Amino acid sequence: MKNVKHAQCTRCGRTVPAVPDLTACPCGGIFDIIYDYAYIKTALTKDVLARRQERSMWRCREFLPVEEDTVLPPLRVGWSPLYEAGELAKELGLRQLWVKDDGLNPTASLKDRASAMAVAKAREAGARVIACSSTGNAASSLAGNAAAAGLETYIFVPSRAPKGKVAQLMTFGATVVSVQGSYEDTFALSRAAISRWGWYNRNAAINPYLSEGKKTVSLEIMEQLGWVVPDYIAVSVGDGCTIAGVWKGLKDLYAVGFISRLPRLISAQAEGCCPLNRAVEAGEPWRPMEENTLADSIAVGVPRNADKALSAIRESGGLTVNVSDAEIMAAQKLLGRTCGVFGEPAGVAATAGVKKLAEQGKLPHDASVVSIVTGNGLKDVANAIAACGEPITIPGSMDRLLDAFAARGIAP
Amino acid sequence: MKNVKHAQCTRCGRTVPAVPDLTACPCGGIFDIIYDYAYIKTALTKDVLARRQERSMWRCREFLPVEEDTVLPPLRVGWSPLYEAGELAKELGLRQLWVKDDGLNPTASLKDRASAMAVAKAREAGARVIACSSTGNAASSLAGNAAAAGLETYIFVPSRAPKGKVAQLMTFGATVVSVQGSYEDTFALSRAAISRWGWYNRNAAINPYLSEGKKTVSLEIMEQLGWVVPDYIAVSVGDGCTIAGVWKGLKDLYAVGFISRLPRLISAQAEGCCPLNRAVEAGEPWRPMEENTLADSIAVGVPRNADKALSAIRESGGLTVNVSDAEIMAAQKLLGRTCGVFGEPAGVAATAGVKKLAEQGKLPHDASVVSIVTGNGLKDVANAIAACGEPITIPGSMDRLLDAFAARGIAP
Repeated sequence: MKNVKHAQCTRCGRTVPAVPDLTACPCGGIFDIIYDYAYIKTALTKDVLARRQERSMWRCREFLPVEEDTVLPPLRVGWSPLYEAGELAKELGLRQLWVKDDGLNPTASLKDRASAMAVAKAREAGARVIACSSTGNAASSLAGNAAAAGLETYIFVPSRAPKGKVAQLMTFGATVVSVQGSYEDTFALSRAAISRWGWYNRNAAINPYLSEGKKTVSLEIMEQLGWVVPDYIAVSVGDGCTIAGVWKGLKDLYAVGFISRLPRLISAQAEGCCPLNRAVEAGEPWRPMEENTLADSIAVGVPRNADKALSAIRESGGLTVNVSDAEIMAAQKLLGRTCGVFGEPAGVAATAGVKKLAEQGKLPHDASVVSIVTGNGLKDVANAIAACGEPITIPGSMDRLLDAFAARGIAP
Repeated sequence: MKNVKHAQCTRCGRTVPAVPDLTACPCGGIFDIIYDYAYIKTALTKDVLARRQERSMWRCREFLPVEEDTVLPPLRVGWSPLYEAGELAKELGLRQLWVKDDGLNPTASLKDRASAMAVAKAREAGARVIACSSTGNAASSLAGNAAAAGLETYIFVPSRAPKGKVAQLMTFGATVVSVQGSYEDTFALSRAAISRWGWYNRNAAINPYLSEGKKTVSLEIMEQLGWVVPDYIAVSVGDGCTIAGVWKGLKDLYAVGFISRLPRLISAQAEGCCPLNRAVEAGEPWRPMEENTLADSIAVGVPRNADKALSAIRESGGLTVNVSDAEIMAAQKLLGRTCGVFGEPAGVAATAGVKKLAEQGKLPHDASVVSIVTGNGLKDVANAIAACGEPITIPGSMDRLLDAFAARGIAP
């Protein structure tokens, strides 16, 4: 890779070659991929980029840690739409607001960006099999992206995993091992199996390439905005890998001069599970928390990418905001009604956070904000049903319809 | 509209101006939009098109019945991926096979193409409100596309409508009227209300612009194939509007010389509900059927676009194929495992049909086929759960994992 220098541990600073099957540092830290920005500057300009036809996360391959001859995985991940949300901005009292709908990825979440990167690196490593432990979007995105690339997957889930998510995995042909025990038991068995059979490891706690895949969301946002930097980018935070990726992409663009300043991040967590935000707010190391939120994709009491995530929030001069489940579900309806975007609870937590910060006066009225929706509402219809209320239910009669409208103050 | 001559009834041949709020012909027939192909030829060439950056259903506006100054609706509909499905082609014994994944549209189905068109025409008509009756993808796509465009929606559903689908509608801010009665009762009340309040009518039985939106799937397929015409295009058929749109797009391209021959259509219906295929096979007019299939989006016993659909199948020298629910669910897993594409039951019926025709020797081995996936599997997780079988369930022990793999003949 001409554009990559090496990998460097975010904890102890040790540098190692960026081999495709790189895992965590012996010290326990996660590696960061270090680029040769001088080379990238010579290889890519904004004009060159503007003329490209490619519309996927692989559009700016110069910023990505893949070999020049790597055959990229087939599913079309990335280049999700960025909508200007004028009505929503007005309701929140903000100057400008955009919504990036990453629920439109092939398996319906931002995690596809990480999984597609894992598949590309697994191919480089010569692996036939990829494995991970997860109950959620990481698992389904890995299963889908690997299936399309002709790779086998072994997915370890705790037996409490929702049947719908297991069904999606099995539809993609994954071998699913449901472990009767805790998530820690599940993770331990997956680690033992990965070690025993030498499978390629797609666990965000270990694989340094995943956040490099996720950073493509920032590359896209900035190009879609015509390189005009917003004041804030808001993202929901669980494990920490996504916000770390968002920040990495921005720093990459800044390093090569594609943008002239850096936005501030908004880290939105659930009130019932906010170990990273609590650490930032208290200026202390993070400590585990219980996982009391219905936003399952960010219910992470022991975040695996805490180091990278905390650095990202702090370096950017970021804001933190913790939202209740009620605020999350209200944001789901708000986004749906004003933007036609249906996000899963974890996916709309960032929007809930932006609303809360705006109401608290912590966002200036002239602020411009991008809010990332990280997953599709169809992933979790049960919570939407609980939140949406009841429709008008009547027999098929115009008189009854008129009565019902009148009773509700509806004047068509 | 410089590119549109007028509208013509598909039944009685009457021509009328193509006004934005055009509904059905007094004779009961649906209108077809008639283009000025000589004008389109002067306005658009393949080279001009190749240089366009627009990646949505509005990419070839020259083929679409919208005014030059119409503000298009905001959601990014269309330009869904077309995947070459090499592994699936091999398994089916076909030379070449592509899968068009229209489940990646904003509300997760091909219906977004029709609803976005309805929103554009409603704006031209000066309407503030759009209405339809539907329990499924038409309703959710209308609610989402209209919400993004700032238009109100009134959606009439029979009270048996699944709660998940109602929740999606209500999240998009639609006023949902749940009618305690049959679908006919629901339709009747919606018609009375539309007439009373003058709402814009998005019912496929009436609105001639919907299939013009849907035809964009064909424009895209042909451009994505580099204008190399496949032998067959397979699509699942319920109401008939989609296959009519597919055929219209192909005829448009043929009329202006962008393609030099026309593919044959494959009309896939459910065995338990195949009134259109039965009519083609028997060479008779269609007659209503019961709706015995789990593929709810094509469970249409009284197809509203029968005239256009039957013409399309017959004109193209098309093949018909009827698939059982078991064949549909097997196709869902086949597509997932080989392509990483998760389609809803109705969405994969076309793939099930291609498989069946190939096995019956009705498709030559050197055939090239495009199969359209019309909706996302996340729309109907219940059926996927029922079809996918059980995962390997064990305690967190390597010995038990080895036993379980051995018992199932899994050799990692």
